[in-house]
Amino acid sequence: MNNYSKSLTSQWFKSLQLDICKEFEKIEAEYLSNYQKFSNPIFINSDSPVKFQFKKWQRSEEQKESNSLEIEQDFGGGEMSKMKGNVFEKVGVNFSEVYGEFSPEFCKKIPGTENSPKFWASGISLVAHFRSPLVPAVHFNTRMIKTEKSWFGGGSDLNPIFPNQEDTDNFHNAFKKACDLADSSYYPKFKKQCDEYFFIKHRNVSRGVGGIFFDYLNTDNFDADFNFVKNAGKAFLQVFPTIVRKSFHENWNEEQRAEQLRKRALYAEFNLIYDRGTKFGLMTNGNIEAILMSMPPIACWE
Amino acid sequence: MNNYSKSLTSQWFKSLQLDICKEFEKIEAEYLSNYQKFSNPIFINSDSPVKFQFKKWQRSEEQKESNSLEIEQDFGGGEMSKMKGNVFEKVGVNFSEVYGEFSPEFCKKIPGTENSPKFWASGISLVAHFRSPLVPAVHFNTRMIKTEKSWFGGGSDLNPIFPNQEDTDNFHNAFKKACDLADSSYYPKFKKQCDEYFFIKHRNVSRGVGGIFFDYLNTDNFDADFNFVKNAGKAFLQVFPTIVRKSFHENWNEEQRAEQLRKRALYAEFNLIYDRGTKFGLMTNGNIEAILMSMPPIACWE
Repeated sequence: MNNYSKSLTSQWFKSLQLDICKEFEKIEAEYLSNYQKFSNPIFINSDSPVKFQFKKWQRSEEQKESNSLEIEQDFGGGEMSKMKGNVFEKVGVNFSEVYGEFSPEFCKKIPGTENSPKFWASGISLVAHFRSPLVPAVHFNTRMIKTEKSWFGGGSDLNPIFPNQEDTDNFHNAFKKACDLADSSYYPKFKKQCDEYFFIKHRNVSRGVGGIFFDYLNTDNFDADFNFVKNAGKAFLQVFPTIVRKSFHENWNEEQRAEQLRKRALYAEFNLIYDRGTKFGLMTNGNIEAILMSMPPIACWE
Repeated sequence: MNNYSKSLTSQWFKSLQLDICKEFEKIEAEYLSNYQKFSNPIFINSDSPVKFQFKKWQRSEEQKESNSLEIEQDFGGGEMSKMKGNVFEKVGVNFSEVYGEFSPEFCKKIPGTENSPKFWASGISLVAHFRSPLVPAVHFNTRMIKTEKSWFGGGSDLNPIFPNQEDTDNFHNAFKKACDLADSSYYPKFKKQCDEYFFIKHRNVSRGVGGIFFDYLNTDNFDADFNFVKNAGKAFLQVFPTIVRKSFHENWNEEQRAEQLRKRALYAEFNLIYDRGTKFGLMTNGNIEAILMSMPPIACWE
């Protein structure tokens, strides 16, 4: 794992962010140009299609900020992109590339930090919540972390308010194909890990209908691992827009919308209580706006 | 601390629950009978005033449930009361009296469990969220916990969307009086503890405008400690309805309402990430409906 590999992976995450944003903006444009056909038109702006807003951020490390020498240090950062549209009620696609030193306490939980607290991490993280309760919410992320060890992690899960088998199958099949290209043991393993990870213990329910979840992936073949991560990203970019386009024009009612807002409460609970990425961010002086971009735009606890 | 004291305290918590519910129902009735005067009438039911709904629940212990002998055991329980009205968008007032054994892991955090994991606990817990963004949300709770040691805990904090000095002063003064009757060192200490406890670290902001927060209170004088806890309850019952009646008829606009929903997101974050009561409940097989009754009815993360 050299600098070349770091640059390769972070460039891929960045380009995937742009490709996904472009595709989601296309969906907004399609909705707008065909809104006469749809029963639940919602207009944030009916003159021109809504676009992503990009916002760069710089990371700081708490212990370094209080350094009296006041040397300006670079700890990386990222670029958030966010869109609030007619179809996407709220979608965030975040790219980040950060580096520095983990706190001694945090090191205990991270492989490869026995001799040095230094780390480098880059990734893409996406959460989309829709105005229509008939379009499933979704999460996708992939990342590479480097200490004295290095590995890939990531996953994606589908969160329909009213699950239907066709969407669930399409979503799973897309990721299964990406997995199978790398190793036939991946999909069953990563699917199981996803079901285990996205389980809301205190309510004894699954967050959604699953997908894949993997971590600490390092087969000693960087090219193969990176290829798998790229294929997972391509799988998401291929399958999810299809799922959105299938139902974004369907009629929905207030009862379905209310159910969506109740379901989002569970999503909020999961993120704040269990999600490792959120906890990681909150505990390591991360960018609050980027970390909490995953939170639902509106949620109800009745 | 004998059975008589247990029964005394739990009876007080129960009677306080009923007194508070009665007072809050009176506020709903007043609003309804005077709605012509108000600019923002909201009608859940305009024919008759809204009332609290009461719901009893029984506690179970996970490890005992899997006992193959299937002996039905009593681990206590509680009674929730909840109202969704024209003034109170959502208010929950919960009474509980539970007993059993803490898990070995949990014992490590609880005093007086070195020789026995047995515990008894009783308390009242209240959270109110209002339709009007001009009426502050509020939390109040008091409890007694008994292991081989025993102590009182509790607190109350005010969460205005648009703080005003008069409400803040009235709220603090009421609790200061209750504190001063017991010990002049209480108020400054409990106020400080409240500020420290209700601080949202990841956003670097206070949740509200404070109040009091105390725990592990045992001066070896049960009567004095119990009196203080009763006076804290009476202080709440005296001051908070006054604060509600001061502004529940004032005109508010959509911008203020939006600000209220944003502020509630912080309330949700605090409860799910930091609140010890919520964590205690989620980790000890508590009643989910009772634990999450504190969550805001609607919250926005924009």
